[in-house]
Amino acid sequence: MTMMKLWHCRDARSFRVLWALEELGLPYELVLLPFPPRWLEPAYLEINPLGTIPFFTDGDVKMTESAGICQYLAEKAGALRIAPDDPRYGAYLNFLHQSDATLTFPQTLVLRYTLLEKPENRNPKVASDYRRWFIARTLWVERHLADGRTWLMGEEFTVADIAVAYAFLLAETLGHLGELGPHCLGLWERAQARDGFRRAKLAQAA
Amino acid sequence: MTMMKLWHCRDARSFRVLWALEELGLPYELVLLPFPPRWLEPAYLEINPLGTIPFFTDGDVKMTESAGICQYLAEKAGALRIAPDDPRYGAYLNFLHQSDATLTFPQTLVLRYTLLEKPENRNPKVASDYRRWFIARTLWVERHLADGRTWLMGEEFTVADIAVAYAFLLAETLGHLGELGPHCLGLWERAQARDGFRRAKLAQAA
Repeated sequence: MTMMKLWHCRDARSFRVLWALEELGLPYELVLLPFPPRWLEPAYLEINPLGTIPFFTDGDVKMTESAGICQYLAEKAGALRIAPDDPRYGAYLNFLHQSDATLTFPQTLVLRYTLLEKPENRNPKVASDYRRWFIARTLWVERHLADGRTWLMGEEFTVADIAVAYAFLLAETLGHLGELGPHCLGLWERAQARDGFRRAKLAQAA
Repeated sequence: MTMMKLWHCRDARSFRVLWALEELGLPYELVLLPFPPRWLEPAYLEINPLGTIPFFTDGDVKMTESAGICQYLAEKAGALRIAPDDPRYGAYLNFLHQSDATLTFPQTLVLRYTLLEKPENRNPKVASDYRRWFIARTLWVERHLADGRTWLMGEEFTVADIAVAYAFLLAETLGHLGELGPHCLGLWERAQARDGFRRAKLAQAA
């Protein structure tokens, strides 16, 4: 049996996977890369032709999507997930997909057009358009948490919390965490206090 | 029992859901809206506070993510899906997540900065950055199909095909379909020939 393997950059979207692995207590091998790897470590393209982070393998399984890998790991471990026959299944899937397609993607534009691009290609207008876009989309999470629930699915912590809370980690990195609503900020506080989160932070600090 | 209900704009990302409903033969109610609804039909914000398309309800279940809803419907119907104990499950999840988070999102930037924005806010450079970004990310699909398989999971058509093929529909709308590789184009041809695809096109033409 080969061990699962994760290619990761510190605090990049692959942090979702690292955190899920730690929460689930699954054994894994970690490969730390500089960000963005497709510029700083061109040989990485031979491993993942897209050059994106994360890249993840489990035997013959190869995956590139951070929220999808979290869902895969939760199914594999049979924990931190909502089953299809549970009335919360639709909301669970929606948060998993929303975490990346609707929340993190606009943040990558802020990152690109304020920091990663060469100065002549930076674009404060586009960065601002998508910062506002991101903040507006957190309304769905904010309203969902307004009934005082601890986690997105209620008292049960799931990989949907990992996937969504990662967008708040990125908001902190990008300096717009203060624009989030109080329920989102509460979720983020509780998430950071978890042992699994701390272990993931330690694992990438090595 | 309440009927499932889909808020949809012609050929928008909600087309994934419409197509999945037709392929699965599930009964549903369709609400057609002008695009983009948050500008042209402000009352829609009372239904979906994000103002995004799709919006989908199934009894108390409320969802906004097109690829997530496809996955939900496939589980509900017990068809066009890959089960967690199948060795293809990781690839299946990866394509579902990739379809929107990695393929459709960059296309929405092309749409926004070439067509939707007021002329003074249009930005050909950003549109071009993300057109190239989209084309580069289709490499994962192109390589996966290079072994001559009919659909992403082999001979079996699944909602992952619907989710990914929709990105090719959008590429056609945006005029960059010709830049895709031959295997992606082959998948797109086969997808359009399906009865379910045709029924979905008819349903939105009403």
